[in-house]
Amino acid sequence: MSGNTYGKLFTVTTFGESHGKALGCIVDGCPPGIELTEEDLQIDLDRRKPGTSRHTTQRREADEVEILSGVFEGKTTGTPIGLLIKNTDQRSKDYSNIEETFRPAHADYVYTHKYGFRDYRGGGRSSARETAMRVAAGAIAKKFLAAKGIEVKGYLSQLGPIKIDEANFDWNEVPNNPFFSPDAASVPQMEEYMDALRKEGNSIGAKISVVASGMPVGLGEPIFDRLDADLAHALMSINAVKGVEIGDGFASVEQKGTEHRDEMTPEGFLSNHAGGVLGGISTGQDLVAHMALKPTSSLRLPGRSINSRGEEIEVVTKGRHDPCVGIRATPIAEAMMAIVLMDHFLRDRGQNADVKSEVPVIT
Amino acid sequence: MSGNTYGKLFTVTTFGESHGKALGCIVDGCPPGIELTEEDLQIDLDRRKPGTSRHTTQRREADEVEILSGVFEGKTTGTPIGLLIKNTDQRSKDYSNIEETFRPAHADYVYTHKYGFRDYRGGGRSSARETAMRVAAGAIAKKFLAAKGIEVKGYLSQLGPIKIDEANFDWNEVPNNPFFSPDAASVPQMEEYMDALRKEGNSIGAKISVVASGMPVGLGEPIFDRLDADLAHALMSINAVKGVEIGDGFASVEQKGTEHRDEMTPEGFLSNHAGGVLGGISTGQDLVAHMALKPTSSLRLPGRSINSRGEEIEVVTKGRHDPCVGIRATPIAEAMMAIVLMDHFLRDRGQNADVKSEVPVIT
Amino acid sequence: MSGNTYGKLFTVTTFGESHGKALGCIVDGCPPGIELTEEDLQIDLDRRKPGTSRHTTQRREADEVEILSGVFEGKTTGTPIGLLIKNTDQRSKDYSNIEETFRPAHADYVYTHKYGFRDYRGGGRSSARETAMRVAAGAIAKKFLAAKGIEVKGYLSQLGPIKIDEANFDWNEVPNNPFFSPDAASVPQMEEYMDALRKEGNSIGAKISVVASGMPVGLGEPIFDRLDADLAHALMSINAVKGVEIGDGFASVEQKGTEHRDEMTPEGFLSNHAGGVLGGISTGQDLVAHMALKPTSSLRLPGRSINSRGEEIEVVTKGRHDPCVGIRATPIAEAMMAIVLMDHFLRDRGQNADVKSEVPVIT
Amino acid sequence: MSGNTYGKLFTVTTFGESHGKALGCIVDGCPPGIELTEEDLQIDLDRRKPGTSRHTTQRREADEVEILSGVFEGKTTGTPIGLLIKNTDQRSKDYSNIEETFRPAHADYVYTHKYGFRDYRGGGRSSARETAMRVAAGAIAKKFLAAKGIEVKGYLSQLGPIKIDEANFDWNEVPNNPFFSPDAASVPQMEEYMDALRKEGNSIGAKISVVASGMPVGLGEPIFDRLDADLAHALMSINAVKGVEIGDGFASVEQKGTEHRDEMTPEGFLSNHAGGVLGGISTGQDLVAHMALKPTSSLRLPGRSINSRGEEIEVVTKGRHDPCVGIRATPIAEAMMAIVLMDHFLRDRGQNADVKSEVPVIT
Repeated sequence: MSGNTYGKLFTVTTFGESHGKALGCIVDGCPPGIELTEEDLQIDLDRRKPGTSRHTTQRREADEVEILSGVFEGKTTGTPIGLLIKNTDQRSKDYSNIEETFRPAHADYVYTHKYGFRDYRGGGRSSARETAMRVAAGAIAKKFLAAKGIEVKGYLSQLGPIKIDEANFDWNEVPNNPFFSPDAASVPQMEEYMDALRKEGNSIGAKISVVASGMPVGLGEPIFDRLDADLAHALMSINAVKGVEIGDGFASVEQKGTEHRDEMTPEGFLSNHAGGVLGGISTGQDLVAHMALKPTSSLRLPGRSINSRGEEIEVVTKGRHDPCVGIRATPIAEAMMAIVLMDHFLRDRGQNADVKSEVPVIT
Repeated sequence: MSGNTYGKLFTVTTFGESHGKALGCIVDGCPPGIELTEEDLQIDLDRRKPGTSRHTTQRREADEVEILSGVFEGKTTGTPIGLLIKNTDQRSKDYSNIEETFRPAHADYVYTHKYGFRDYRGGGRSSARETAMRVAAGAIAKKFLAAKGIEVKGYLSQLGPIKIDEANFDWNEVPNNPFFSPDAASVPQMEEYMDALRKEGNSIGAKISVVASGMPVGLGEPIFDRLDADLAHALMSINAVKGVEIGDGFASVEQKGTEHRDEMTPEGFLSNHAGGVLGGISTGQDLVAHMALKPTSSLRLPGRSINSRGEEIEVVTKGRHDPCVGIRATPIAEAMMAIVLMDHFLRDRGQNADVKSEVPVIT
Repeated sequence: MSGNTYGKLFTVTTFGESHGKALGCIVDGCPPGIELTEEDLQIDLDRRKPGTSRHTTQRREADEVEILSGVFEGKTTGTPIGLLIKNTDQRSKDYSNIEETFRPAHADYVYTHKYGFRDYRGGGRSSARETAMRVAAGAIAKKFLAAKGIEVKGYLSQLGPIKIDEANFDWNEVPNNPFFSPDAASVPQMEEYMDALRKEGNSIGAKISVVASGMPVGLGEPIFDRLDADLAHALMSINAVKGVEIGDGFASVEQKGTEHRDEMTPEGFLSNHAGGVLGGISTGQDLVAHMALKPTSSLRLPGRSINSRGEEIEVVTKGRHDPCVGIRATPIAEAMMAIVLMDHFLRDRGQNADVKSEVPVIT
Repeated sequence: MSGNTYGKLFTVTTFGESHGKALGCIVDGCPPGIELTEEDLQIDLDRRKPGTSRHTTQRREADEVEILSGVFEGKTTGTPIGLLIKNTDQRSKDYSNIEETFRPAHADYVYTHKYGFRDYRGGGRSSARETAMRVAAGAIAKKFLAAKGIEVKGYLSQLGPIKIDEANFDWNEVPNNPFFSPDAASVPQMEEYMDALRKEGNSIGAKISVVASGMPVGLGEPIFDRLDADLAHALMSINAVKGVEIGDGFASVEQKGTEHRDEMTPEGFLSNHAGGVLGGISTGQDLVAHMALKPTSSLRLPGRSINSRGEEIEVVTKGRHDPCVGIRATPIAEAMMAIVLMDHFLRDRGQNADVKSEVPVIT
């Protein structure tokens, strides 16, 4: 495949540019018989969509998704599900000045070299706007997994220098603030930090964590299609992600074997340093992953760069941008983990394993 | 594919268990006309092989690789390259006592649940011994890349608590010590640390870094087959790896945009926080990745676990093991990065782009 | 992948049901810089669309395709091309009576068993209406191939008992009649035959031939991804196709080696029994394939069948149907051959091999 | 993938040249717990192997297969199965005279153009000797399918001008003659025909048929991964195959709908023109396919050709060859159908659907 498809049995193929006519997606391999409406997808799309607080881009996109196929009389049919979101608030002229400019830390320079030219409007295909379709596809996967008792949930674990306090951890707080923070006490700090940052014209990185609970033992296909390897692939494919950890991740470097190994008893594992994966296969414990997002590259503060003739220029990025892309990344991380899990579930158990046809077989 | 193949155009498929008859591999998609001998592969296999210092497992395996196909008169033919390494020093009876035992932090428990039973001899398929074939395949990729001016090199950047001192960094030191450390001053500390650890019967994690220099601009296929995402996949698929970073990785979380963005001038980039990838495509700067390896799970120190009847037991792991799997992981990380790069090179430029046939075309 | 994607580097993924909201397609892997407009696709869509003569279904579908992404300022960008055709003339109520009925030789019975239920409106996903998106995607491939000097053209070589006369063969006649026959003399016979058939309420099979000229030597990847094997896959995936031949096909069974082998001279091959493929690789001669289409299964003439409770019933199919699906199949066969060729071209030569960036590389 | 792998979940990747050291294969995705020995594979290998009658090549190859991995204590483990057959009777010097010669209708010319040069010994990778590994892999698939009640059997249906008489059809006759003919009366004719042909120094085509009985309803994944499309791919990938039919195949062209449609009754289908597939999904009827093989291209009778400098030459092919490749093709066709069916079975039902672990899950 050429790069825009994720998955082996449950596949998600996306198209669309930031300032094009529409974003779209084909979700292939969804088993039949699952109740599915546009509202199911809209919930997560609304969690990701821009403009819901002063801390994200002020671009107004309703991100209303339309299901074009694959659902009949309210249930999935087993055939591909076509999804479409029309772009409505493009202001492409904001970008006409960057046509010949390479913004530092953006994909402008590499796209131009790879493809010979680029769609410069809002980053074109390299814009994180593409992730809206992943969120929609992920909502389908979440619904499938929920029926199997698996729940995928994420949160922001660090915003720049502000780490959440594990002692205050409360899943119920996550939807109560624009940051997806599970620590209510962290929220005012984050608000203050972001306000100052916006004033400064700068941007900041973030860390997102995502957890699947209710996991079965046995998902993942060694050697190369390990659950953790596929998850690393899926999370690293999200715009701005620079690092992925499973379980204790980089903390494992300094751990001794006696500390890291998760001992087992008839009552269960005594710890979860592994993050729910051993040998590339799920253990049944919570599947735990973390990802690091770099700071947004679109800044009002001037930076040095070159133009398409290789001449030195100074870049000031206008347009509407998120000062911290991590803030809206929690639903995207959840979506990608859900897609990975559903793909592996089907590989292990089959796409039509749940079908019970009452129609007689003729012989 | 079912899990034992990596790559899209340049694919590596491996087979073999730790204590089976042999390990093998099919390398498919290698362009024709590349000079290739078994010695080319043996160099890296010898760098990875066990028993070369007192700090690694004392299992004696020559790891002699045989090329069974795909090479004719000293050159690759464009057809699949079959590789074989015979196992010679299996001591399977070392493992008969663990037939019904699940060692903590090993794949024993999950393999048994996934497949109904397992090959318990030395971890069977879940053993890191499988990585020998990746190193052999990676050596082919390295040779291909070298002809394109791309060099892939790795080093150990941290052994448990001991970090290398960047001020002492010297690529020439890497082959001079059993740890692949580029910091000569770190070596005695590492020796001492490992000796104490072995005495203690414990194990430790490590961090490996890998760098490709001479990179072209333009490798990587957005959205899902980004160069960084594929690299994360490939590195996370290595046994014991729990985290992957590209460039600054998790340090990006606390960086501001003005710090992280790599400014450009006509003379080049002013920094490389991105690690050589933007928007999933190579920038031409050095491609830089890091990976965290957990401590070995095979310990002489007793641990709590269960057996196959779910009963509580105490586990003491005998057999011959590496107290730090990270020590031998540098050539494996290099191999996986080389495989990823070669695959992306061919996707961008084509498998037979270099063929110049002097045979007349009849019309 | 789950079944709705064709290709390795140049991939076509389709969605949509006969009587759903829309048909759609994502074409991934198209190289950048190709001039492309909706009119380029419409030409072939109009050749395939229903209702253009009295010999095809009277369903009225404009089949107007919209390009939603992947094209910027009139050229492909190298990113995925999203295509959409809205359905406009569904008469789903025509089908409410078959909800519980399995029409003989239709996919009703198998879809119901595989998926537990089905979208019965006009055959749902199993309808040949899905091929409209293949024709649109194929038009992109044709445009790419044309720039490489490769032309893909098809014709109807047999309509039921009426074979075209090779002595009258004229490519220029193909667009002049509704059957895509290259033999002007055959057209009145076909008209008469079809009129009688329609009156009878019956249907008939057909044979379509498709030829690529201007072929380069060297396309095709042995062993399994041979050009002929991929072509057989692609053509057999078209609705109603029951047989595929390359070159002389089944006639080869009775040929001796001295007859079949295409002798070579410095001036060229002396014959083309092979149909332009040897060992799975193109020879540079014309690539020639034929496919057999079965008669339409939707008949006014009553047939024996069962309903979803397994009870005996008599089926009479209403709705609007083609009495010979082969009549509109020529553009579909061309599209599939073009898609196969473009995929193999890119595998051999690379996706971005033609990109010449004038932007300086910074070092 | 690069061309040497077949399948999506159950994959077969082969390597090896006719006159190289060995042939090999990795069978990936085989479910665990299937009893498997080398003898299981040898049965079909012996049916295919050369030199068993005077009507096939006199090259002596024992074709003894060795299982190198994936089987433990007599059962498959769910991990990849490595297979190896060593070549023993190469006479490469027979071929030194064709190093610069392109034999008509052989792959010599196209391999040289595609790869720049070729392994000319016995056809190298393009030799049908590669199919030995498919037969070994297919034997694994047959064993899996047998446990599901599915049996795959083939026969020779036509040898040049000699068609078997359906009235004499007897499956029990197939193993009783070197042609795999089910019609005992045809055997003396075939013997006589072949003896004359060998004397003449010529070769002849053949038609092979293959049938799967005990089929479940529901295998196959529309749109592109239809069961019939995948089967066409698999059969057309066999050396020398020029045509593939499902069910009535090309006879469908002249059939009317009332004749072709297989009517259904509560007691079963009344006919099987479709060959057991509708809409790309199995109906539960016998799956029936036919394939046409061209006459062998290696002839003692001189033919016109060119050499690698484009000069006119006369070719006389020495070496040891089958005068009718179709004679040994029956087990290959069976193998490919079995591989296709097993792949689709697992896609529909899952790779580990049959695993029943008695080990307690800890929580």
